[in-house]
Order: sequence, then C-alpha cells, then structure tokens
Amino acid sequence: MGRACPDRPALRGFRIVVVHRRRIIPMTSTPPVDPETGPHAPDTAFDDTASGDPETAGTVAFPDNPVLVAVTRGETVENQHRGAAVVLDAEGTARLVWGDVERPVFARSALKPMQALPLLEALPDAPDLTPERIALHAASHIGRPEHVDRIRAWLADMGLSEADLECGDLDWPTEAEAARALARAGQTPGAAHHNCAGQHTGFLRLAQALGVPTRGYIHAHHPVQRAAMAAVSDLMGLDAAAAPCGLEGCGIPSVALPLWAVALGMARLADPSGLAPARRAAAERLRAAMVAHPELIAGPGWCDTRVMQVTRGRILVKRGAEGNAAAMLPERGLGVALKIDDGDRRAAEVALGLVLETLGELSAEERAALADVFQPAVTNAAGIVAGRVFPVVPLDEDGGDDDPEADRIDPWDEDWEEE
Amino acid sequence: MGRACPDRPALRGFRIVVVHRRRIIPMTSTPPVDPETGPHAPDTAFDDTASGDPETAGTVAFPDNPVLVAVTRGETVENQHRGAAVVLDAEGTARLVWGDVERPVFARSALKPMQALPLLEALPDAPDLTPERIALHAASHIGRPEHVDRIRAWLADMGLSEADLECGDLDWPTEAEAARALARAGQTPGAAHHNCAGQHTGFLRLAQALGVPTRGYIHAHHPVQRAAMAAVSDLMGLDAAAAPCGLEGCGIPSVALPLWAVALGMARLADPSGLAPARRAAAERLRAAMVAHPELIAGPGWCDTRVMQVTRGRILVKRGAEGNAAAMLPERGLGVALKIDDGDRRAAEVALGLVLETLGELSAEERAALADVFQPAVTNAAGIVAGRVFPVVPLDEDGGDDDPEADRIDPWDEDWEEE
Repeated sequence: MGRACPDRPALRGFRIVVVHRRRIIPMTSTPPVDPETGPHAPDTAFDDTASGDPETAGTVAFPDNPVLVAVTRGETVENQHRGAAVVLDAEGTARLVWGDVERPVFARSALKPMQALPLLEALPDAPDLTPERIALHAASHIGRPEHVDRIRAWLADMGLSEADLECGDLDWPTEAEAARALARAGQTPGAAHHNCAGQHTGFLRLAQALGVPTRGYIHAHHPVQRAAMAAVSDLMGLDAAAAPCGLEGCGIPSVALPLWAVALGMARLADPSGLAPARRAAAERLRAAMVAHPELIAGPGWCDTRVMQVTRGRILVKRGAEGNAAAMLPERGLGVALKIDDGDRRAAEVALGLVLETLGELSAEERAALADVFQPAVTNAAGIVAGRVFPVVPLDEDGGDDDPEADRIDPWDEDWEEE
Repeated sequence: MGRACPDRPALRGFRIVVVHRRRIIPMTSTPPVDPETGPHAPDTAFDDTASGDPETAGTVAFPDNPVLVAVTRGETVENQHRGAAVVLDAEGTARLVWGDVERPVFARSALKPMQALPLLEALPDAPDLTPERIALHAASHIGRPEHVDRIRAWLADMGLSEADLECGDLDWPTEAEAARALARAGQTPGAAHHNCAGQHTGFLRLAQALGVPTRGYIHAHHPVQRAAMAAVSDLMGLDAAAAPCGLEGCGIPSVALPLWAVALGMARLADPSGLAPARRAAAERLRAAMVAHPELIAGPGWCDTRVMQVTRGRILVKRGAEGNAAAMLPERGLGVALKIDDGDRRAAEVALGLVLETLGELSAEERAALADVFQPAVTNAAGIVAGRVFPVVPLDEDGGDDDPEADRIDPWDEDWEEE
C-alpha cells in the first residue's frame, strides 16, 4: 500500500521494480543518495501500489495509455504524448474515460480549487476576502506585477509580509517574460513570485481565521493543511490523507489520487447540490471569483485564463504541473481531469481541448478563438511555423469513436473497469 | 513515401490519420490554417510513411516503445518517458536495441557533428579554423558570453557580422541564467545567442571557402546545405535528402531518419577507418576539438559538456532538441542514438546514462560524478529534494536483461527486426 502522508515524507534510496506491459523490470542502478540529507535503504523495495494486490506489491504499473497528442515537424510526427482523461458528473457517472483512470496521479495545482474551500467557509462574510483574493487563492499565477502586487497588499492587510510565506523563493516567475522583466529591474524573485503564493497567502489568512499560529502552515499536521486535505477528501469521498504522498513544489503535501477522484471533485464544485450548505455556498462563491478574474488564475495568454475568458466562464479550467489539467462545467454539472503520462504542459492543454471538443462543449467561434491554445503552432527562432501540436482521438476497442453516453460506470463499485 | 526536402517545406493543413496499437485513429479536428501564410489542403491525407508500405500509407505508426525513464515524487512514480535507443559499430552491428529503431526521427542537433565535416574538409589547414571554432560549429551552445563573444569574433574575422546569421533572433539563450543576465544588462538576444549560432557561423565560413554567396546558406538548395546533407548521407549510407523533411528551429532543413542510421553515423565518426582519407581526417580533427573544448559544445553543467569532462573525452556526447541524444565511443568504435517519444530533454539525458551503464562504459567514479546528470533530483522552490529521475531497464521478450552481445542484427538487411 502507499505510505500515508507524514509531515515531511522522507525520500529513501530504493531500487525501482516496475511492471511494464506485464513484464517485471528490475532497476539496475542504485539511485544516488546524499548521506547528509536522508536515510539510506538502498535495498528497500519500491512499495507503492494503490491496489495493494500482493501480485504487484513492490511494483509500479506503467499504464499503456493511449496517445492523446501528436507534435509534427513539417508533415511528420516528431513527438507523441500518452495520457488518461475522465469526465464525471457529481454522482460519479462517467461521460468519458480514456486510459487508466484508476492509477493514482499527483494532480498538483489542479487540486487548488478544492483546497480553497476551507478559507471561504471560515470567512463567509469577511470584507477583506474579495473575489480577486479568492481567485488568487485558487491560482497558479505566472508572476506578473498584477499578481505579485496584489499578494503583497493582501499580506500587508493581514499584518504579515513575504517572509511569512513558506513556499520557497528559488523559482523565477513561471512566465519567462515576467522573469526577464524582474532581471531587467535588477531584482531576484521573492516568495510572492512563486506561482503558489496566492494559495499560500490564503493559507496564512485561514490560519488567522482559525486562530492558530501561521508558522509551519505548509506541514501536513498543521490545521490549515488538515482542513485542505479534509475538503479534498470530502469532495472525492475518500481519505486523501491515506494516499501515497510527496511534497509539492511549494512544500505542502502532495497526494497521488485516482484520476477519476480528481474529476469527481471538480464535478462536485461544478454541481455542489449534494454538498453541505456552507460548502455548497463556498463552491459557488469560488466559481464566481474564478469567472470574474480569470487573469489571476494563471495570466494573460495562458490556457486556464484564455479558456475562461473565451467561454465567458462556462468552462472553468485549473491546470497542474507535470501535465495535469482539470475543469468544471457548471451548466452541465461535469468535472474533467486528465494527466499526460510524461508531464508535458503543452500536451495537457491540447488534450484538454480534445476532451472539450469530444464533449461537444466548444462552439465553432470558441474553437477558432482557442486554436492557439488547443492546436498551437510550433514556431522557430525566425518566427516561421515549423509544425503543430494536434489532438489524437483514442478509439474504443471496437474501433469506433468513444461514445460518451456509452460509458456509464460507477467509480464506487470496486469492480468497475474502463469499458 | 515521405516528401523529399524542398527549399522550404510548405506546412499544409491536413487531417492526421494514425495507427495506434494497430488501430486506425482518425483525427477529428482540422488544424487551424492561416490563409495568409500557407497553402490550405485540409483533406490531404497525412502522407509520411518511411516504409512506403501501402498498408500504412497515409498513416503514422505510434510505436509501443518501452518506458526508459521514470520520475518520482516522494516514493511514487509521477511521470514516465518512453523511447528507443540503439548502439552500433561502424559496420552496422548492433550492440543494443530498445524499441522501434527503424521509425524515422528528427535527430535535430544530434546531427551537428556529422554536418560539421564539410567545413573541416574544405579547410584542412586554415589557421583561422581553430579547435575552439570547430567545437562551436558542432555545438548547441547555451548562450553564455564565452560562446557569444567567440562567435562574434569569428564573424568579424570573416568580415561578416551577426546580421549575416540566418538562424533567427527570437530565442533567448538556452540557459535561463544566461537569458536573465542578458535582460539584467538591458539587452535582447541577437542571432549569436541562438544555440545554433556556432554551427551557422561555420556554415558562413564554408560558403566563403567554397567561393559561393553566403546569403541563403540555410536553404536546402544552397551548396552549404547540400554539402552537409551529403556528409550525413555518406556516413549513414542512405540518401538523407530524400527523407521526410521539416524545418529546424534555426531554419535549416531537418530530416527524419531511422534511429539506427543516426547511431551508425556516430559510429563512423567514432571509428572513421572505413571513410575516405579526407573525411577520416576531418572526423578525427572534429573529435579532438570536441574533447579539447567540451564547455563550448553546450555549456558548464550541461549534460554533453559534463560527460565529456568527466570521462576525459572517452565518451563524446551531442544532444538534440526534443529528446534526442547521440554519442561516440571512439575506444570501442561505437555510436549511440536515442530518442524519447515525448521529446523530454531531461529524460533523454537519463536514458543516455542508462545506455552507457548497460554497455558497461561508466566506471564507479564516473557514475558517481555524473549522478546529478544521469539520475538527477527533483527539487522544489525551497531547495528540498521532492523526487528523482530514474532510468528503467527494458527487458527482452524472455524477461531477462537485454544481453548486448545477443543482438547482432544487420541494419542493411531489409528483413531485420528487433529481437
């Protein structure tokens, strides 16, 4: 079984043993271990099987997921990206299933909208918790001044400063131009430039609202992280804290959860009718803030922001690092989650377009307006188009297009399998 | 069949039809086409099959390549990367074959050492063609001042300037810190910052040596590109100019060639005993220059440079964009080529380490010294190790480790298949 989430998961040395296409693959090389920084157990089996199946204990299954995205150069495919995707309603009924959606994935920042609920529930009426700040609390901002300045102002309002943020300050802004602008001004990044700084500022505000010390708010045992994990668990109907755990880029716990659970969480934000009243109100307030301020969720020109702007909030997008994307479709009561096996960001965006297209969610005008996001060009250093990134439709076993209505599965049934 | 290489391959609109795991996958979306910039033939079949097999004409095969690299977070696999790798000697005898090594791949800058031969052959004794400049001509430099200043001085020696470079100037230096240093100085990149600028400066010098106009040297019909393509073809024993073609990031023709051909070309640079005398001398001079100036081939801390430094030139590495890596092992007379299906740079470096390890090429000291390259840590914004990147050994069909000596295949035999 996966390891439950400790305060700071120790990274042990180990030998990977994997199952690839039903073949056992021993790992020959022992990973380098720094004797100064971590415990060393080089012969410990890599014990992370979500199934707990004794036949696969000590192994990791590499799924044979379908190719969802192809990248061309000229008229030849240069790269391909595999992945899994799932669309569910709030009852757990699947509308689309591609690939292995049971294997645990780190959904990363795609979980931020779920993790944002405790702050909204703790402060249902506080005038300082404006829609802009709610949006930033659910955001992975790209580090432009309009993001950083708002975060610093929020910290000042709380009587805190950037020094109270525990997300780390070694990362330059996500947007290369924002990073260069900072360098051009002779500056180096502070914690407020970290793409999670808005979320962390909200975490500090939650600590204040709960009347607990802010210090250490990133650790799993802190009431702030307990509240965030509980909200994720509630939306997904599982115990997220018991899932295989790692550290996020910003230092908070990162849990590996089945992809269908991520989609279910998004579906329950999209259609919170089954949630407790306070949580339901928080979900609706959160969505309204994201729709009102899409430019704060990522930044101008970036996928999340563009989709929310072009669809006028009909589709709410939150991506995560390493090839994750999630979305809410409130009018249809659906949640979307996908993960690219190799972690490619651009492929995740194109695959998200493919899912939305397959669901029939994009109008012709929206498809055209979002072509640069969902089927982007590959340009070279002279600005010439050298290739394109294309979605690839996976087919079901019968060779026909996936019929969204044909997949009616119950994720609560332990025996369910992708059809 | 693939399209032969025109001066500037037109990028047509088309519908992709792919074969994935023996299933035909129609592409539902028509790619966006700019009516201003390119011809539009939206219903043209995607015609790029190197095999010419009528059963697959109009299709692209997505290979079921093995997983070569896994990325962990905590103790759980977060990402995986598939790919193919092959090691040959100069006679074409295979020492290692993983995955589909017949499928054409764009090896990108991994071809630069082969493309460098014409300049060395044209100028066997010219005092201005120093080892440093030869190294830069085979390099993908990261844009530090030591690279850019040398390129500008070389251009000035020729009576030319950065304006004569046709590689484009829209790309910031490859190394993020070099890009920020440029921004900090209030500058924007010039063509000399492009990672191919050293190669292009050598192309200009070759045009001068050939007594032809330098202008247009990036185009397929120009004597410079004809010479580069002919050298590649000679080393590989095929007609590279007839291969499926695209544009490089720097504007020169990019051809998709079987991975085994890339390895064979590297093997013949490593062991040029079968080449014509002038070409043999050029190969040896090229290798000597790369070994003497590894820091000019990429830059301090980067894979190519590090491996050549640590192995004191016993292993010569040249990576290419989009997950390519190639290497020469002169003492063993071997050439290495690998390509990660999804184009990931870090995975290509780790897979290269796996190949070298499998060949028994790394001493314990070298393995330890190169651990940060071949099994790098994933660190977060606070500098904490959150995961690692691991090689994964693919097994043969019998479930045993690949025995390098067991794979003796003749790539010239059209019927050969991976065992």
